[in-house]
Order: sequence, then structure tokens, then C-alpha cells
Amino acid sequence: MDNAVEDLIRKLSRIPGLGPRSARRAALYLLQNRERLMVPLAREMNDVATRIRSCVECGNLDTGDICKICADDRRDRSIICVVEDVGSLWAIERAAVYRGLYHVLGGTLSAIDGRGPEELHIGRLVKRADRSDLTEVILALSATVDGQTTAHYIQERLAALPLEITRLAHGVPVGGELDYLDDGTLAQALKARGKIG
Amino acid sequence: MDNAVEDLIRKLSRIPGLGPRSARRAALYLLQNRERLMVPLAREMNDVATRIRSCVECGNLDTGDICKICADDRRDRSIICVVEDVGSLWAIERAAVYRGLYHVLGGTLSAIDGRGPEELHIGRLVKRADRSDLTEVILALSATVDGQTTAHYIQERLAALPLEITRLAHGVPVGGELDYLDDGTLAQALKARGKIG
Repeated sequence: MDNAVEDLIRKLSRIPGLGPRSARRAALYLLQNRERLMVPLAREMNDVATRIRSCVECGNLDTGDICKICADDRRDRSIICVVEDVGSLWAIERAAVYRGLYHVLGGTLSAIDGRGPEELHIGRLVKRADRSDLTEVILALSATVDGQTTAHYIQERLAALPLEITRLAHGVPVGGELDYLDDGTLAQALKARGKIG
Repeated sequence: MDNAVEDLIRKLSRIPGLGPRSARRAALYLLQNRERLMVPLAREMNDVATRIRSCVECGNLDTGDICKICADDRRDRSIICVVEDVGSLWAIERAAVYRGLYHVLGGTLSAIDGRGPEELHIGRLVKRADRSDLTEVILALSATVDGQTTAHYIQERLAALPLEITRLAHGVPVGGELDYLDDGTLAQALKARGKIG
């Protein structure tokens, strides 16, 4: 096999979701579809990589210094939804029920990975949150130890401001079977049970 | 989400092994590692795509008109191993037990997909096989109906030449458990059983 092809496979295998084996299969498919896929994809990747940047306001990835969400006048500026990363932001946007702004932390606090508050965009959040027309900050962080530690830390940092601080509801995922649900979720879902009708 | 990013995800999802969901995750990872991975990978893909071509002799993918295997004087020119695609060739090379030449068909005959002999490099194989120093053609095709139909067809096309035509042995895969083996393989492995010691 050509060295350049081996190097290509090595690079592809660093993409999450592609192991060494599937990276080889991916490389072969690309090689067999050079004009139809490989060249256009390479062009697109290079193009996007040079045009995309982090929004100076919220940390979302987009073209331009201010992302489309921050620049959109129809978005509700009285709410900021705090997320760990852009993947979470995309997920919430796909759900298409939230019309406020975002704030991307760039991770969670982590004792194991040695990630402290100064490595996340928390200072920037506190600064953004300090304006009179902001009424609510939603902490949409993972229901993990690190996520909840981060939520708690942010809550304390924002405590002095006249804001409502909320978090996502815990419960049974839509379409989820009780049998497969962990005890913690089930307990939360029971505690937060609501009346029917 | 930016249109260019959506288009990138769409292109990535055409790579086998990446569905729409994992293509999104892959795109996000690339976007978060623009300098470290995305730009170098794009460069490598473009570079490889323009340099790699099909070997005019055997159909292998490599830089240059003649691939490294066909050009290698240490390879045994008396044997040609016929494979469906370059993936099979790579797999046999990885096993590192074969030192002869290859011939890549570019697929198998297929009644369902309407692929006839003229769409495979069979004519070219017959021409290559017609030289006095060639002694063996190995048909290393899949043990599927289409693979075996193709093997049978090639066997007939080469019948007039003074060649030994062989195929890969069937049997229990190394490390394979009998419990999980299909009946056909087990039957073949029993029929082809050999003495111990």
C-alpha cells in the first residue's frame, strides 16, 4: 500500500466513529470515488476549516465573528442556555423548541482531567449574564457528576445576579422503555411525576 | 447550523461506516480540530486523490501507471491472484504470505445488479494470462453465489490455456468457534479434513 494512503487511513482513524478497520474501508471507498466524493469533500473540508470560527459572543461555531444565532434579531435575548459543547447546541437546535441564546462552555469542570473554571468560558458567561434584560439562564449540562458539578459552580457564580437559574428536567426519555432505564432516572421521573389531564 | 457545515455532514455521511448521526459527530470533531486534523486531512485527501490511479496492468490503486506490486522484481511472476476489488488485495497483502501478482476485477458478475463480464476486467485478465511463464491463476473470490459464478466464468475463459486454476480453501476460520459456524462452512471443512502429524 502507498505511504500516502497509509497516512490517509491513519488520519481518518482519528475521527470518532471510525476505528482502524473502518478507516481503511472509508479510505478505499474514497479512493474508488475520487472525482465524485474525495476531491469535493477535501475542498469542502478545507473551505469550512478556514471559514468557520468560534463566535466571540457565545462560542458557537459559525462563519463570521458573531454566529447566526447571536445575530438573529428574532431570538429571545432574555434567556441564555448554557451547554458544554457545540454538539449539545446542535442537538437543542434540532429539537426546534428553544428560541433564546446560547453559551458554549467548551467542556465541563473535571477533577480527573484536571480542568478548572479558568479553562471554560465561565468568566465570559458571568459577564454576559450581567445585563438587566436577561431573566433566565438554563443550565443544559449532562446529568453526569462532572456536568452537575459544573452546573453547581456556575449557579454559585451567578447567585448575585437577579436571574432565574433553571436546569433540564430529568425523566423517562420519550420512547424509552422502563425496563432498560437506570434506577436514578426512574427515581427522578417518579419524584417529578405530574397529574394527567 | 451553517449551510457549508450541513453540506460537509452530508458528504461525510456518504462514507461507509458513517451514518447521518456519526457523520455529524465526525464533522463536529473535525471543526473542533481544524488546524490539527481537518486542514491536514483535507490536504492529504486532495493530494492522494490526484496522485492515485488504477494500475494499467492489474487494476491495483497506487501512484504511477504501474503499481508497486507489478513493478517489484522480487514478486513471483508465475502466479496471478484474481480478486474482486482492491480491498481484497489489501487484505491478502496484510496476511503477508503471498508473493505473486494480482488482478483486480472491479467486482463480480451479478444478475441482480445487471453486471456482465464486459463490465469487469476479465478480457484484460485473459490477455495477461496468455504468457508462457505463467503457471497458476488463483481465484480468490468471495464464497457467495456471485463470487462463485464469476470464478466459474473465468475458469471457462481460461480453460484453453495450460494453467493450473486454483481457489482459496474453505474451512473453519482461525480462532473461529464451531458453534457459530454456518453449516456450509462446516460441511466443507469436514470434507476437506486432513491428517494430523
